[in-house]
Amino acid sequence: MFDKILIANRGEIALRILRAAKELGIATVAVHSTADAEAMHVKLADESVCLGPPPARDSYLNIPSLLAACEITGAEALHPGYGFLAENARFAEILADHHIAFVGPKPEHIRIMGDKIEAKRTVTRLGIPCVPGSAGAIKEDSEAISVAKELGYPVLVKASAGGGGRGMKVARSADELSVALETARIESKAAFGDDSVYLEKYLEKPRHIEVQVLGDGAGKAIHLGERECSLQRRHQKVWEECPSPALNSSQRFEIGEICAAAMRKLGYAGLGTIEFLYEDGQFYFIEMNTRIQVEHPVTEMVTGVDLVNEQIKIAAGSPLTLTQDDITISGHAIECRVNAENAATFRPSPGTIAYYHPPGGLGVRVDSAVYGGYTIPPTYDSLVGKLIVHGRTRNEALMRLRRSLDEFIIDGIDTTIPLFQTLVRNADIQNGLYDIHWLEKFLATGGMDITEG
Amino acid sequence: MFDKILIANRGEIALRILRAAKELGIATVAVHSTADAEAMHVKLADESVCLGPPPARDSYLNIPSLLAACEITGAEALHPGYGFLAENARFAEILADHHIAFVGPKPEHIRIMGDKIEAKRTVTRLGIPCVPGSAGAIKEDSEAISVAKELGYPVLVKASAGGGGRGMKVARSADELSVALETARIESKAAFGDDSVYLEKYLEKPRHIEVQVLGDGAGKAIHLGERECSLQRRHQKVWEECPSPALNSSQRFEIGEICAAAMRKLGYAGLGTIEFLYEDGQFYFIEMNTRIQVEHPVTEMVTGVDLVNEQIKIAAGSPLTLTQDDITISGHAIECRVNAENAATFRPSPGTIAYYHPPGGLGVRVDSAVYGGYTIPPTYDSLVGKLIVHGRTRNEALMRLRRSLDEFIIDGIDTTIPLFQTLVRNADIQNGLYDIHWLEKFLATGGMDITEG
Repeated sequence: MFDKILIANRGEIALRILRAAKELGIATVAVHSTADAEAMHVKLADESVCLGPPPARDSYLNIPSLLAACEITGAEALHPGYGFLAENARFAEILADHHIAFVGPKPEHIRIMGDKIEAKRTVTRLGIPCVPGSAGAIKEDSEAISVAKELGYPVLVKASAGGGGRGMKVARSADELSVALETARIESKAAFGDDSVYLEKYLEKPRHIEVQVLGDGAGKAIHLGERECSLQRRHQKVWEECPSPALNSSQRFEIGEICAAAMRKLGYAGLGTIEFLYEDGQFYFIEMNTRIQVEHPVTEMVTGVDLVNEQIKIAAGSPLTLTQDDITISGHAIECRVNAENAATFRPSPGTIAYYHPPGGLGVRVDSAVYGGYTIPPTYDSLVGKLIVHGRTRNEALMRLRRSLDEFIIDGIDTTIPLFQTLVRNADIQNGLYDIHWLEKFLATGGMDITEG
Repeated sequence: MFDKILIANRGEIALRILRAAKELGIATVAVHSTADAEAMHVKLADESVCLGPPPARDSYLNIPSLLAACEITGAEALHPGYGFLAENARFAEILADHHIAFVGPKPEHIRIMGDKIEAKRTVTRLGIPCVPGSAGAIKEDSEAISVAKELGYPVLVKASAGGGGRGMKVARSADELSVALETARIESKAAFGDDSVYLEKYLEKPRHIEVQVLGDGAGKAIHLGERECSLQRRHQKVWEECPSPALNSSQRFEIGEICAAAMRKLGYAGLGTIEFLYEDGQFYFIEMNTRIQVEHPVTEMVTGVDLVNEQIKIAAGSPLTLTQDDITISGHAIECRVNAENAATFRPSPGTIAYYHPPGGLGVRVDSAVYGGYTIPPTYDSLVGKLIVHGRTRNEALMRLRRSLDEFIIDGIDTTIPLFQTLVRNADIQNGLYDIHWLEKFLATGGMDITEG
């Protein structure tokens, strides 16, 4: 096992990794920007190194600074968290060249899954069901129109290098398609420096369901059930559950096994998430994330498996000791992503937390890196913490979520807690009857009663 | 189900009950003394009633005030928590006379278990193993000497009405026995107004292991595994675990089934704890507690069962829906009772909590009713909160406990957190090699390095 690990991230995920490392008896090195000198992960780490000022390219994304921090502190491994350099294959290769273990999959797998077209080609070969679409990038509009005719409208234009909804356009007719192609190309070029786009069948009311996988790179791989992440705003997940209210256990087992078998064939190492759209009993691959995800706690709550611990052990060369039979889904877990934003307008609300008191008691977990007196810098994303609850049944989890939200005090800034207090009392949510469009529609139709002038 | 419940307690257990009630959709009434007006359970309850000033006899123990509070607020049920009126059979009867449901067992069972001699007689009849001893209260010293000869020295003199170690004396010879009898009688008279004492075989190095039972009063009863509570100071538990490091699963099942069968025969309703000394593979009944216990969370963490929720449902007349097959012990849980006391001298440290930040993350539960800015009154017990951790293995739980203790910030007062930070790093504790005398010996031999002048 490693003696020392460097955590190349900030916020709640830096703290999450720090906790896992401490529980493995590994010394921790925090890195931070000048804006994050007072951050919790810095205070709790054994050592810390300031990388530079914001923005991230001068600190959290600065590879020479990170290498220097590893060298100075003698860290043998680096955990990238999510975002920043977590899915940068070149970074993983550079670390390998410097004999620093990267806590993540093999660079070639990061590279494949980072290219949406290549990812789809690869997973199709491995037996994972995909959304029908163009065979690869669309060169000519005429080709797109012919593919769309075959798929049937509506169709979706997507950026090959895309993510987070950027460069993604729906077209319901050939006329709309020409416009969508052009807009998607422009957005993609601006956001990712690449104007390559492709076409997919558009699903009207899908759910977002993703499968957690874990492999050791030596042919062993298991799945840890699914996560239901359909409640999204602007393609950002805000509420996640495990299990999905839409699946029964045989569907869960079937898609899980397909994913685990694919990872065994691929020789995948570490954690991964295979994301699907789900409609009418069918799964359609969207993408694979080759890192720990924000919503990983719901899986941990129902399986009891510490995913970050497993990730670190595999990066240290341990074989996977968990077998598929060790994984049982017990009860139900729900996570709410609490952001420093107005709950009705979603306007960011950085500033000083005057008073902080998290909820406690049975089945309540808080993953947060903020504290009373802490000033949230305006520089980074607005996630202040995640409230995760577990119950024996979905109803118990919902009631527990309700009372935990009512206990949660974060004074001095606006947070999205009131949004969740509304959602937990909503009949559609209580009945599990929602798709990926539900939240946007709810908000657009005055669900949060926006009264801002 | 009840519409409204009154919580006749304070501190962390009042909050624990409030949380369970809220999760059942029951409106909550807090009661408090003038010293507890700023307490968390008061702030979070739907309604609150001030009972009067400290001491407890003028507020939390004042039955007419409690009845009035029920009447004023329309509470249909009363949860007594632990301590105060929780094991007062007469109180339960008075509530019944006023048509208020008491969340606890039938008064006759409270009464039986409150009398140590009667309790022992009853459980023996029900098949629960007891420590060999005198058939009842000892009248003459000569009778005691003859019983002691039969049992073999050392023997233990115990107050019939006793608890918390008061009126309890060890005798290693006939000479010591005469002194022990006299001292025990005087202490018992002073503490309980009753000088009746009895004799038991004294176990040299027992562990304290207790079995959690749950019955519906209609013949159904199950057990929920055991709790290991050997780490005690002055007969007060400070660290509890589930499962016990000393038992294997067949021992667990055997003693659990004996207890559950006894409760079925008795027609026991609600939660109960059957406490044993355990030595050389044998269990010896000590007493039965007819209430929720401080250490109940370790059972909840490994079984996933919300014990207070079950307790309330049974008090509302629901049959027990859990079967023995529903109860599985998953992983390992440890609870530390954090007191407002100096960790080396155990001197109470009431006062204002300048800053409070509990640990979070996977497998960490905090049951505490304090908060930043709260002033702990000197009036009541010194429990400020319970830190409970869960892991897939005992070692994982220990490592999680270690990092959680290191994260726990309670500034402004002394707490026993440093005691637990020492214990979690101790080899005997790590190996599970401790009995009920271990902690006292550890402290007496400078384990906490008392440097106070």
